[in-house]
Amino acid sequence: MKNDIEICRETPLSPIDDVARRAGLHPEDLTPQGTLKAKVKPSVLNRLANQPEGKLVLVTAITPTPLGEGKTVTTIGLAQGLAKRHKKVMACIRQPSMGPVFGVKGGAAGGGYSQVAPMEKLNLHLTGDIHAVTAAHNLAAAALDARLYHESRHGYDGFTEKTSLRALRIDVQRIVWKRVMDHNDRALRMVTVGKNEPGKTINGIEREDGFDISAASELMAILALSRDLADMRQRIGRIVLAYDIDGQPITADDLQVAGAMAVTLCEAIEPTLMQTLEGVPTLIHAGPFANIAHGNSSILADRIALKLTEFTVTEGGFGSDMGFEKACNIKAQQAGRGPDCAVVVATLRGLKANSGLYDLRPGQALPDAIFAPDENALTAGFANLQWHINNAAKYGVPVVVAINRFPQDTDSELEQLKAMVANTSFSTHVEVAVSEAFGKGGDGAAELADAVIRACAHPAQFRPLYHLGQPLEEKLMAVAEVGYGASGIELSPLAQNQLAAFKAQGHDNLAVCMAKTPLSISHDPSLKGAPSHFVLPVRELKLCAGAGFVYALCGNVMTMPGLPEKPAYMALDIDENGHIIGLS
Amino acid sequence: MKNDIEICRETPLSPIDDVARRAGLHPEDLTPQGTLKAKVKPSVLNRLANQPEGKLVLVTAITPTPLGEGKTVTTIGLAQGLAKRHKKVMACIRQPSMGPVFGVKGGAAGGGYSQVAPMEKLNLHLTGDIHAVTAAHNLAAAALDARLYHESRHGYDGFTEKTSLRALRIDVQRIVWKRVMDHNDRALRMVTVGKNEPGKTINGIEREDGFDISAASELMAILALSRDLADMRQRIGRIVLAYDIDGQPITADDLQVAGAMAVTLCEAIEPTLMQTLEGVPTLIHAGPFANIAHGNSSILADRIALKLTEFTVTEGGFGSDMGFEKACNIKAQQAGRGPDCAVVVATLRGLKANSGLYDLRPGQALPDAIFAPDENALTAGFANLQWHINNAAKYGVPVVVAINRFPQDTDSELEQLKAMVANTSFSTHVEVAVSEAFGKGGDGAAELADAVIRACAHPAQFRPLYHLGQPLEEKLMAVAEVGYGASGIELSPLAQNQLAAFKAQGHDNLAVCMAKTPLSISHDPSLKGAPSHFVLPVRELKLCAGAGFVYALCGNVMTMPGLPEKPAYMALDIDENGHIIGLS
Repeated sequence: MKNDIEICRETPLSPIDDVARRAGLHPEDLTPQGTLKAKVKPSVLNRLANQPEGKLVLVTAITPTPLGEGKTVTTIGLAQGLAKRHKKVMACIRQPSMGPVFGVKGGAAGGGYSQVAPMEKLNLHLTGDIHAVTAAHNLAAAALDARLYHESRHGYDGFTEKTSLRALRIDVQRIVWKRVMDHNDRALRMVTVGKNEPGKTINGIEREDGFDISAASELMAILALSRDLADMRQRIGRIVLAYDIDGQPITADDLQVAGAMAVTLCEAIEPTLMQTLEGVPTLIHAGPFANIAHGNSSILADRIALKLTEFTVTEGGFGSDMGFEKACNIKAQQAGRGPDCAVVVATLRGLKANSGLYDLRPGQALPDAIFAPDENALTAGFANLQWHINNAAKYGVPVVVAINRFPQDTDSELEQLKAMVANTSFSTHVEVAVSEAFGKGGDGAAELADAVIRACAHPAQFRPLYHLGQPLEEKLMAVAEVGYGASGIELSPLAQNQLAAFKAQGHDNLAVCMAKTPLSISHDPSLKGAPSHFVLPVRELKLCAGAGFVYALCGNVMTMPGLPEKPAYMALDIDENGHIIGLS
Repeated sequence: MKNDIEICRETPLSPIDDVARRAGLHPEDLTPQGTLKAKVKPSVLNRLANQPEGKLVLVTAITPTPLGEGKTVTTIGLAQGLAKRHKKVMACIRQPSMGPVFGVKGGAAGGGYSQVAPMEKLNLHLTGDIHAVTAAHNLAAAALDARLYHESRHGYDGFTEKTSLRALRIDVQRIVWKRVMDHNDRALRMVTVGKNEPGKTINGIEREDGFDISAASELMAILALSRDLADMRQRIGRIVLAYDIDGQPITADDLQVAGAMAVTLCEAIEPTLMQTLEGVPTLIHAGPFANIAHGNSSILADRIALKLTEFTVTEGGFGSDMGFEKACNIKAQQAGRGPDCAVVVATLRGLKANSGLYDLRPGQALPDAIFAPDENALTAGFANLQWHINNAAKYGVPVVVAINRFPQDTDSELEQLKAMVANTSFSTHVEVAVSEAFGKGGDGAAELADAVIRACAHPAQFRPLYHLGQPLEEKLMAVAEVGYGASGIELSPLAQNQLAAFKAQGHDNLAVCMAKTPLSISHDPSLKGAPSHFVLPVRELKLCAGAGFVYALCGNVMTMPGLPEKPAYMALDIDENGHIIGLS
C-alpha cells in the first residue's frame, strides 16, 4: 500500500471555494489561503444565528497504546461515512504540533484514505496559528523579564519617575509564566535565563526558568475556549504571569502586554477550513495536547460547524479519561453544550495490549502474538473498553464503539469483540460497528456512520461530572473518583497551599484540568486495563485564570517532550521535484 | 495628520489578483493568501527566462540617527513616484521582525502616504516566513542537544548499536548553533540549558548557550541568498552546527536534519506580493538585519521583480557602510548582478545630528535646535552625506541623493543642501532631489523618480570591493579600509585562530559579513560624521558556510536586542470593532 503522503498527493482535491460553498459558507465568510485552505471569519456566526444546530459527535478511544488506535483516522473516516450517507457533515480537529511531527508520532492528519488534505500543510505550519501562540506567549515572557530588569535597575521609585508607570515589584522567585517552543526540546525543560558575564547585568536578572511545548501554553487553551475575539482579549488580560513581592498576582493586563498578545492572535482566532480526501469540509483550530492541556479543538470551530451541518464530528485527545473528560467538563461547560454522542475507538491489538498479558516496553519491539488471534488477551483487554463505554455513559451520552480494523484482524475475533459489547449491559444506548476507514475511506466507515446516526436518534442527557460552583477540591475529587474510579485524591503540601491561595484569590469557581499520563486510566502508566483502588496524587496546581481552569499535575507529567534516538525528522526531505517526502 | 495605521485603513486597496495582473504575473504564478497578499511561486522565473531585466535601484542612507531618516518611506515613495511617471516598477523589501515592532522602532512598512499595505499584516506575521525560520533553526538546536544526550547516555558504540547511526561525538564546548526567537528578549542572551534536578540527567547535558533574534539566524541569510529551493536545501546541509571532539565540523547534513529544515522553509522561499497605498506591486521576502546579518531582502524577489519591471526599487538596512556594502559585496556576488543606481536618503535633521555639534544620547529628549535652521551644523553634517555618496561611487554606480523633507524643514536650508551636493565633485554621476513621499505619496516623490530615471541612463560600472577568490583577511581589510576608511584591522587572538581554522577547513573563498554598530561608519558609535584614522577591531569570527560568508563581530554587537522601559507593545490593542490599534 502507498504511504500517507503518496495517497494524499495522488488524490484530486476540490478548490477550497467549492468545499466552502458545499458547506454553506459564502465567499465573504472566508479568507482563502491558497487554493486548498481558507480562514473562516467568526462573523459567520452572526449570519447563521438563527440556524438550528446539528449533532455533536465526539470521538474518543480506549487507553492508548504504542500501536496507535487510529482515532483521527476514524474521526475523518466517520465524517466521510456520514457524507456517503448523504448527511451534511463537517469534521473539527486540532492542528498538529510540530513537536510530534518531527519526533516520534509523526503527523496527525489521519491516514490512508481517511486524511485531511493536503496532509503536509496540516502537519507543518498550516496557517501559522501555533506560531502565533508561541510568539504571543513569549512576548509576555520577554516583557516580564524586561520589566523585572528595568525596575531593578532604576529602583521602584526611579522606574515610576522615568516612565510614569506603576512599579509591578515582581517577585523573581514567583514568576509562573515559562516560555514555549513548538518542538520536542528536552534541553529547554530547565534553563537559567538572564545570565551575565561576571560583574555585568546587561542581560537582566538571572533566574531559573523553563520552556513548555506550545501545545501546553495557556494561550493555546484560551484560543480553543474563546467564544470570539473580544472574549479572547479579556481572557488574555486575566492571565496571571507572576506574583509581586507582597504575593499579589500580576496579570497580562497589569503588564500592559495583553493587547499586543491579542493582536498577535488576531488571525489565529479564525478556524482554518480544509477538506478530507473525499472532500468533506474540515475545520482545523487550536492544538492543546490532552495530557498537559485540555486536548480538544476549539469551541469556535464547533459552533460554526454545528450551525452548518447535521453532524459535526470532533475528537478529544487520548482515551476517554483524558480528552473526552475535558471536553465534557471544561469545554462543554464553557461552550454551553455537550456532545450528543460518544464514539469510542478500539482495536483488537490495542485491547490486547491493554490486557496486561504482554510485556510491552517503550522502545522495544512488539511481541508478534499481539497481532495474532488470542481470545484470552482480548477478553482481558475488553475490561478497558468496557471502562471507557461506562465512562462515556456517566456523562449521559449514547455510545458507539468503532472497531478500527487492521489488515491482520480476523473476522472471528472481530465478531467476538462485537458480541462482547452486545452482551454487556450498559447504562446508556450502545452501538458497535467495524470501521475500515484507513483502507477504504468513507465506504469503509459507512456502517459506523449508520451506527452513529442510530445512536444520535437517542437524545443525550448530557451532564458533566461537576458544576463550576462546587469548591475546587470537590471538582478534583469528582474527576478522580467518578471520572477515573480512584478511591480518593492526595494533594501534596505544595498543592494544598496553592489550593488555599487560589481560593483566597477568588478562583474557586474555575474548572479543573488534569495533567496525567494517558497510558493508564490512573496516574500510573503501569496500571493497565481498568484499575481501581488507587489514590490520585496531585503534585502541583497551576492557575490558568484566562483559560478558566486550575491545572493539576498528577504524577510526573512532562510539559516539554524530548526527541528520541532516531527521530521522525530524519526521514523528511525535499525530492528533485520540490515535493516533501518522508512524512507520515 | 492621521497616524500610519489610520491612513492605511482608510486607503482603498486593489484585490491582490489585480495588482499581480498589472505586474505581469499570471494566476498560476500565485498562491493567494487572503485578498491582499499572495505568495509568488519561484517557478515564475522559468516562464520569464527570456525577459530582459530592468534596472535595480538600491536605496541606502546617511549614518542613521535616533530621528529616523525615512529610508523605507523613500523606497516605497520612489516606487510610487516611478509609477506616476508611467514606469513599470516594483519595490522589494524585507519582512519586519516582530522584535522592533513590539520594542522601540515600531513597524517597518514605510509611513504616511508611502506605506506597504495592509501595514498591520506586514508588521506582524505576514505569511509566517520568519516563524518558519525560527522553527527550522530551533529544530536543528533541539536535534543537536538530543543527539548529544543520546550519544552520552548510550556511549558512542552503544548509540551506534542501538540506532545503526554513526556517533557524531559532539564536543559540548564547541556547539556554535544557538537558538533563536523573533522577540527582543535580553534575558535569553546567555542561558544555561539542559539543567537537571540534582542527580538526574533526563533533561540532557547541561551547557551554556544563548538565543539570537531570528533576523540574525544563518537560515534567514540563506533564505535571502538562495536562488531556488534546491539551492536552499544544499546550503542548509552545509551549515556547521558544532565541532566534534576531534575538531571536525558537524553539519546539518551530518545530523540528518537538513531535509526537515528545508521542508520547514518550503513556503518561506516564496516571496509575498503586497501593494503600496498607491497600488504599486511590492515583494516582501526575508528579514536579515543589517548590523548582525547581511541586511537585504532576497535575491529571489529581486530576480522576479527585475524580470517584470523597468525599475526594481529595493533597500539595504542602515547606512551605506552597512546594508549597501553587504548588498554589493555579498548579495550581488551571489546573485551575479549589482545595483544600477544608489539612492542615498538624507534629512536635514539627520545631517545635523551627524555633525557632532549636538549632545545626543539614547533615551534623552532631542535638542530643539536640531529642528531649526542651523547652517553650521548642516555644513558639518554634510561630511557624512559626502562620505556616503563617495562610498556608493566606489562601487561604480551613479548616485541620487534623496532629501526626505520634514514639515519643519525650510526651503532655504533644503536649497543650501542641494547646492552643497551640486557644488561638490564626485567620481560618479550624482543627482539630488527633494522627496515629500511621506505626506504626498508618489506625487511627492515624482521629482526623485525623475532624478533616478536620469541617473539610470548612466550605465553603472559595478564592481565589488573584493572578489571571493581573495584570502579572507584581504576581504576583511578591503571592507575596513576601502569600505569604511579605516587605517587597518586588528584581529583578536580568538579571531586569528578562527581565521586559521576556517582557512584550513577550506572556507577561504567565502564572503565576509561585518557585524558592527550602524551608528558610525567606524565600529565606535561615538565617532560621528566621516571618521578616519581608526583601526577596526575584529573580536570574533563566525562561520556561515550555508549562507556563504564569514561573519565578523567588530566591537560589541548585540545579536539579541532588549525591550526598553516603555516598549511599543504597550500601545497595541484591539478596539471594539476588532481592529488593531496603536501600531505605527
